[in-house]
Amino acid sequence: MSCDARFKEEAAALGYCFEGDLKIGGNYVPLIRDGRNIYVSGQIPRVGNEVVVTGAAGNQIDLSCAQLAAKICVMRALALLQRSLGSLERVKTIPSISVFVQSAQHFTQQSEVADGASELLFRILGPAGAHTRTSVGVFQLPKNATVELSMVATASSAT
Amino acid sequence: MSCDARFKEEAAALGYCFEGDLKIGGNYVPLIRDGRNIYVSGQIPRVGNEVVVTGAAGNQIDLSCAQLAAKICVMRALALLQRSLGSLERVKTIPSISVFVQSAQHFTQQSEVADGASELLFRILGPAGAHTRTSVGVFQLPKNATVELSMVATASSAT
Amino acid sequence: MSCDARFKEEAAALGYCFEGDLKIGGNYVPLIRDGRNIYVSGQIPRVGNEVVVTGAAGNQIDLSCAQLAAKICVMRALALLQRSLGSLERVKTIPSISVFVQSAQHFTQQSEVADGASELLFRILGPAGAHTRTSVGVFQLPKNATVELSMVATASSAT
Repeated sequence: MSCDARFKEEAAALGYCFEGDLKIGGNYVPLIRDGRNIYVSGQIPRVGNEVVVTGAAGNQIDLSCAQLAAKICVMRALALLQRSLGSLERVKTIPSISVFVQSAQHFTQQSEVADGASELLFRILGPAGAHTRTSVGVFQLPKNATVELSMVATASSAT
Repeated sequence: MSCDARFKEEAAALGYCFEGDLKIGGNYVPLIRDGRNIYVSGQIPRVGNEVVVTGAAGNQIDLSCAQLAAKICVMRALALLQRSLGSLERVKTIPSISVFVQSAQHFTQQSEVADGASELLFRILGPAGAHTRTSVGVFQLPKNATVELSMVATASSAT
Repeated sequence: MSCDARFKEEAAALGYCFEGDLKIGGNYVPLIRDGRNIYVSGQIPRVGNEVVVTGAAGNQIDLSCAQLAAKICVMRALALLQRSLGSLERVKTIPSISVFVQSAQHFTQQSEVADGASELLFRILGPAGAHTRTSVGVFQLPKNATVELSMVATASSAT
């Protein structure tokens, strides 16, 4: 099964659609390709016009909800890569992802939250989904989002 | 009008001078060029020896003050690029900026704060100012700064 | 004295051992090499199975303890580079490090904390240890760690 087919399958399993415009909330671009490197702007768990997981992990939001937020963020990043490259088959590596988790004071499971995103990268991209990761607990995020995720990917240059 | 002339114009409009030494607060370097990539250290809104916008956005600091902080940070980053490259005309793209906003608990307009920096990038660099962006709300910043901004840029290799 | 010998010396001075497996806390990889660039995942001050410096700087943790945390993080990152490259002599530059400091509300010495890591980079790597840096104060970190540090390095391609 291709990466693109697996992406579609995971999107269906989450119950969200990542087709159509992916709204961003400011005066910047969602993705920049520079040679082999592709930089993806910080993604929040927005579906259509709505941020679907908000609030601090450890308070209103339990671990599985925060992991869902991380999954939606990474699916948005993959959807942007897919559009830019034509196919996720062209992704070679994911040199790094940064996962910012809006956290209650005593919530220390930022790595476990980020695992939600990491698992999808491996499941959809296979070995090309290997990535380094930095997960931190922040005080607030745009639109009160529970998670924000940014990514650097590399792609083969041939189409 | 050249990028450098526009930079001078925007500096005058802000009422700050970005010539002379740009003080940094630790044992590191302000900028590293590695091939086409240029990494700029995290900038706070320091002018001369003074950090001119301090405190948490949403408490003492309103949105327009926080945007001013973001503008000063990005002007410092551009001043560093200008010195390293000789001219801002040589900037090709800004693959990414990261904007850390010291935030009060319920302040969720980190993207709007970062727009202050993003608008200047487009205004000064034109199409080369397109960038990806990650904006998060943090609990504290060095010297109680309201904003810290780091940047990756690319430049043409010819002088 | 070689970088590797200085690394060993600094590890002994800290009183910690960075040989053997470096445990990571999630579903990702510690390091990715992509051409000349090497990305290192966010490191916390873990020695063996234990995170040895926890809590917020400015509360339970004073500046010198937080600096120790930053030192352990950067030694872990260097240990990972050493294994991947065979020798730290092959490191060419450290384009950037990011230092996330778990901070009490009024603690604003994130740069001073990060200096702990920066000094070791210069001391061990010499001129190749020059780096750009972004230091921010976050609300929480995985496993209640006091510091998390990520790194981008470059290496010569020859072995």
